[in-house]
Amino acid sequence: MHVRKVGILTGGGDCPGLNAVIRAVVTRAEQLGIEVLGVRGGWRGFLENDTEELSRQRTRGILDAGGTILGTTRTNPFQVKGGPERVEAAFSAWALDGLIAVGGEGTLSLATKFHERGLRVVGVPKTIDNDLSGTEVTFGFDTAISVATEAIDRLRTTAEAHERVMVVEVMGRNAGWIAVQAGLAGGADVIAIPERPTTVDDICKVVLTRRAEGKTFSIVVIAEGALVQERGASEAHLVVSNKSPDAFGRPRLGGVGAYVAREIEELTGIESRVTVLGHVQRGGTPTARDRVLALRYGVKAIETIAEGASGVMMALRADEIIAVPLVDATRERKLVDEPWIRLCDVFTDVLWAKRRTSPPTST
Amino acid sequence: MHVRKVGILTGGGDCPGLNAVIRAVVTRAEQLGIEVLGVRGGWRGFLENDTEELSRQRTRGILDAGGTILGTTRTNPFQVKGGPERVEAAFSAWALDGLIAVGGEGTLSLATKFHERGLRVVGVPKTIDNDLSGTEVTFGFDTAISVATEAIDRLRTTAEAHERVMVVEVMGRNAGWIAVQAGLAGGADVIAIPERPTTVDDICKVVLTRRAEGKTFSIVVIAEGALVQERGASEAHLVVSNKSPDAFGRPRLGGVGAYVAREIEELTGIESRVTVLGHVQRGGTPTARDRVLALRYGVKAIETIAEGASGVMMALRADEIIAVPLVDATRERKLVDEPWIRLCDVFTDVLWAKRRTSPPTST
Amino acid sequence: MHVRKVGILTGGGDCPGLNAVIRAVVTRAEQLGIEVLGVRGGWRGFLENDTEELSRQRTRGILDAGGTILGTTRTNPFQVKGGPERVEAAFSAWALDGLIAVGGEGTLSLATKFHERGLRVVGVPKTIDNDLSGTEVTFGFDTAISVATEAIDRLRTTAEAHERVMVVEVMGRNAGWIAVQAGLAGGADVIAIPERPTTVDDICKVVLTRRAEGKTFSIVVIAEGALVQERGASEAHLVVSNKSPDAFGRPRLGGVGAYVAREIEELTGIESRVTVLGHVQRGGTPTARDRVLALRYGVKAIETIAEGASGVMMALRADEIIAVPLVDATRERKLVDEPWIRLCDVFTDVLWAKRRTSPPTST
Amino acid sequence: MHVRKVGILTGGGDCPGLNAVIRAVVTRAEQLGIEVLGVRGGWRGFLENDTEELSRQRTRGILDAGGTILGTTRTNPFQVKGGPERVEAAFSAWALDGLIAVGGEGTLSLATKFHERGLRVVGVPKTIDNDLSGTEVTFGFDTAISVATEAIDRLRTTAEAHERVMVVEVMGRNAGWIAVQAGLAGGADVIAIPERPTTVDDICKVVLTRRAEGKTFSIVVIAEGALVQERGASEAHLVVSNKSPDAFGRPRLGGVGAYVAREIEELTGIESRVTVLGHVQRGGTPTARDRVLALRYGVKAIETIAEGASGVMMALRADEIIAVPLVDATRERKLVDEPWIRLCDVFTDVLWAKRRTSPPTST
Repeated sequence: MHVRKVGILTGGGDCPGLNAVIRAVVTRAEQLGIEVLGVRGGWRGFLENDTEELSRQRTRGILDAGGTILGTTRTNPFQVKGGPERVEAAFSAWALDGLIAVGGEGTLSLATKFHERGLRVVGVPKTIDNDLSGTEVTFGFDTAISVATEAIDRLRTTAEAHERVMVVEVMGRNAGWIAVQAGLAGGADVIAIPERPTTVDDICKVVLTRRAEGKTFSIVVIAEGALVQERGASEAHLVVSNKSPDAFGRPRLGGVGAYVAREIEELTGIESRVTVLGHVQRGGTPTARDRVLALRYGVKAIETIAEGASGVMMALRADEIIAVPLVDATRERKLVDEPWIRLCDVFTDVLWAKRRTSPPTST
Repeated sequence: MHVRKVGILTGGGDCPGLNAVIRAVVTRAEQLGIEVLGVRGGWRGFLENDTEELSRQRTRGILDAGGTILGTTRTNPFQVKGGPERVEAAFSAWALDGLIAVGGEGTLSLATKFHERGLRVVGVPKTIDNDLSGTEVTFGFDTAISVATEAIDRLRTTAEAHERVMVVEVMGRNAGWIAVQAGLAGGADVIAIPERPTTVDDICKVVLTRRAEGKTFSIVVIAEGALVQERGASEAHLVVSNKSPDAFGRPRLGGVGAYVAREIEELTGIESRVTVLGHVQRGGTPTARDRVLALRYGVKAIETIAEGASGVMMALRADEIIAVPLVDATRERKLVDEPWIRLCDVFTDVLWAKRRTSPPTST
Repeated sequence: MHVRKVGILTGGGDCPGLNAVIRAVVTRAEQLGIEVLGVRGGWRGFLENDTEELSRQRTRGILDAGGTILGTTRTNPFQVKGGPERVEAAFSAWALDGLIAVGGEGTLSLATKFHERGLRVVGVPKTIDNDLSGTEVTFGFDTAISVATEAIDRLRTTAEAHERVMVVEVMGRNAGWIAVQAGLAGGADVIAIPERPTTVDDICKVVLTRRAEGKTFSIVVIAEGALVQERGASEAHLVVSNKSPDAFGRPRLGGVGAYVAREIEELTGIESRVTVLGHVQRGGTPTARDRVLALRYGVKAIETIAEGASGVMMALRADEIIAVPLVDATRERKLVDEPWIRLCDVFTDVLWAKRRTSPPTST
Repeated sequence: MHVRKVGILTGGGDCPGLNAVIRAVVTRAEQLGIEVLGVRGGWRGFLENDTEELSRQRTRGILDAGGTILGTTRTNPFQVKGGPERVEAAFSAWALDGLIAVGGEGTLSLATKFHERGLRVVGVPKTIDNDLSGTEVTFGFDTAISVATEAIDRLRTTAEAHERVMVVEVMGRNAGWIAVQAGLAGGADVIAIPERPTTVDDICKVVLTRRAEGKTFSIVVIAEGALVQERGASEAHLVVSNKSPDAFGRPRLGGVGAYVAREIEELTGIESRVTVLGHVQRGGTPTARDRVLALRYGVKAIETIAEGASGVMMALRADEIIAVPLVDATRERKLVDEPWIRLCDVFTDVLWAKRRTSPPTST
């Protein structure tokens, strides 16, 4: 079957590199004689007939722009009455021969379902958290660690001048990849992540041990989803999360970063300050690496769909972009694993000291 | 009198450019045949006899380094029994002919007192907040607005892609200079500062009016010391500050930024996120402008003391570094004034709409 | 007279901050009830009737963009037959009540002439070289020194690791401001500028003296218009410029930077490398400071013209934007003066060693 | 055999991330109970007995520093009388149980030879050019493309404002990886590399075709080793290299970038400017990615040597650090291959237009 017209949507959280993917798809599609229709606001565009034709003219100058010219939402057609059928009807009414869905776990799960219902769908993985399995890395992640590392670099000098503890809360609700890689790159003394619960007491121990050794400051990097046991709490009902409500049932002000900074100051008497980077990590111009990765994903996606494939996702493996089954990407979350945790053990202070003499890592 | 040996200390909060000042003092001093003694940890060094000799060798490679090689504290000798006398004794024991005190309001007030007690002291103004009177600008401020503006640039694209409100809390406890200049440079839609109390309702009005006009996102820049009236509160006991205690008398988690973001989301139903930049604004390598300014201050300070002056502070006026009376610098805080507030009125949306047609500014 | 419609053009070399000026003019004009007509390609737009209406919608998102949405040329209507009359005719045909001319020496000279012929014209100074008199600083300059300083920062580490000489050629055809300020900020060992002729031999002397003192590398910053006497040449016909032709009458490949690097290597035997930054210094996103400065210029320009003034230029003096006579700006070029040259003498090595013990500067 | 003491050297060209490798080796070695001896200036240190003991204290604060605290040279002991024997004698005199050689093709070839002569040697690959086979990527490369891409970003806006051609010469004497990836990331219109000879005429054709299509500017990215046929020259004796002498047998001023810019201007009449980035690409602070990569290489190298291995090099494959035979790394240079050239064909204009409709790439 000849592919004449392809749709493209961006869904889920924002991510640097989305525009580079769109530009690549449009550029390569033109060369292959394929029209591209932009579906606006993720799957919402299907339900609301919100689209725009994408030409090379329209995608000029967006290579280095953050955000996505198509907009993005978390709309799930399967939670809307008659949603799936409306998507299929639009697909058909627009005369699409295929769809490129750029998104994270949510978007790709929906892509899988529509593929199973018979639409030709190809996925492009996207998450700054880097927690999608099936691919070595997702675009956007490099920009996120680059932004977080720059912040840590700045904090180190002021921590040293003031003999303070600096706590940095970075993104990562379910996986600690940003905390781990930015923490390693920034020379953090403590790295706290969801994959490895820790306690306020242990963190304070690091800070105090460092002080005893004459290192008068500490850098603590904490993933927003890090599991940190509150003082006095039993293991059972641990954790301060930035999602747990306060005493009045309202979302707490301040997340785990603000909490840990306050506790360190109370327990150790050492002045502690917090930085919450938030969406600075997912906005703005992508790094060179993320742009190149996004371009490669985009070109491969349109070529794959032009060849008639469906139900596959683009993946980076051994420096090549290949197509892997969509279901592989969403079957399970890619968490920080042992080799990386051992690497953290090498470079962060004291906390897991006992493991230091463990057998060589194989990272 | 011939000046043979001069002390230098850095006091108060950390600030990008401190090392550039130290390097400039040492470099020029050597040419003038003057020895330089570094007093460590601000005024604390006098009380604890904590010093180091500073040579050009020692100050190589520090021009672009954040922090201060001398360390800094907020120690006030006048709050220590016999403190002032001990400072004078050390001054004399070390055979100092003069002292260069680099610091903000606190440090310069102490410098003034010691000058009045007979020591030869020259001040160099330093605050990232830019709220010292007597000088057009202080070094460190340009780095702070540069870091904050970069963050806002990144947030704008993601705010647009997601149709969200992004709240950025920047430094500025008593003066809103960082919020104003980074807000203007970053194209903020709301700028809230200590000098001009506002309300959560007014901020929400901006957000909603923008939405009604088809502008689907908003950027809200808030100084950490901004006065924001809580909903329901009477004018009288307004303000949410990040210093006010919570119901249990403990410091609140999260500051005014986190509070405002939560309120906007509750009141408007539009997703809102917060970034708290914290000490990222005062750490790390200084901008080119701050380095040049710091070098000029340093050279002028040692030359001024070499000429036998005392009780003066270096100041930038009309692009020249001159010496002004120390008392001028600390007499009153330099607040955001009318011309700058009118400039905010021009570029921020709606909030002060009624003032928009006011007579031309003279900024 | 009531001002209803104002034209704006950008002329001469590109400069970061032009779009911020345009945005400010349009934003404030709307509040004052004034229409803004963009004249495209500098004065060329008048001759070719090339314009576009500027609305706030059109100027959204350009605050941090380099370049100018109006384009720019060096077209001089006085060198075109009937040119001045055609400009006046267009001015009248478009029903303009005034014109804001944003540009450097060339553009502002033309603005002066048209003012003298009876048009209402207000100038906004623009040059990355900072060589316009009448104002303390022009926007774009801060971005230029910021880019150049970052480059020097990177070169220093590699120069040190390799024990090499790194030559950086920066912009500045007639004035050495970028070389001086970026050189000071980057810790250069030699700074060569148009205002102060030097010789290849003197530069090599610095490099060799440093080596003798155990400093194994050197950073040489050279303005593109620096006057450097060739070896063997008499004072009379000195200079290697990047404009002088080679033996075949064609423009030489490589400028003064490439020449000096080759000579240093030949004369001292020390490996030397050259970086020619070129237009990287004048492109791309402006610094926070340049954006704020540009916004202030833009607001003041439209307010000044709204008040009926003409023949004036916006200027920064003592941290205020004021209007000064246009003729002041173009009467003479602002060159690097004694206080700044003495500052260079303090921080650059050896070259002007004899001046080191000179009386205190008053920078 | 128990490993008690290991030497480390850095050889060949400078590269961002060298200090991160050194820090990682020292940190992990301490945990494994191994002493580390730094050999200064590459293999020169062996010949001149120039070493320093490396402690964690010595390697504090170097993670984000460019250059190498050990210095680097291109000294080849096999070109020195009795050189290899002197290296072996020093190895033995210093009681080394192994050596970690961090370097590019040259250094690793020497490492292989010493391994074959019986020393225990492990290699860590390093080259900003990314042209070492055996590993997917080398640290330093990401920093290089990041710096080059930032420069291209800045040039694009000014090229557009002025309707000019901007030529950027980037590093890459034998392989075009930096030109390809920075060119793709920066949206270049022409990418010229050593692997694919081109002509001045072809480049001008791109520029003119773009202009005919209404695209008034062009970005040309050229590797310093790009093969560009001079006008009039037959295929046989093509190329302008920055190493070929001028008519007087002296090295030419200006490289291929300056040459191409001049030719474009002459042939098309469109103003063209050149930027020569030079060593800015290999100096300064490494990107987050390069730091993490360097840390992983360092940890793996010391663990590998602790296990008694020799003759192997650390390599990144499928996101894991593994040990591969040293000879694999230096057997052949990794050149830009077909998938990447096809990717360039997709995004660069016109030049290789005929290939555009070629079968899908598999990058």
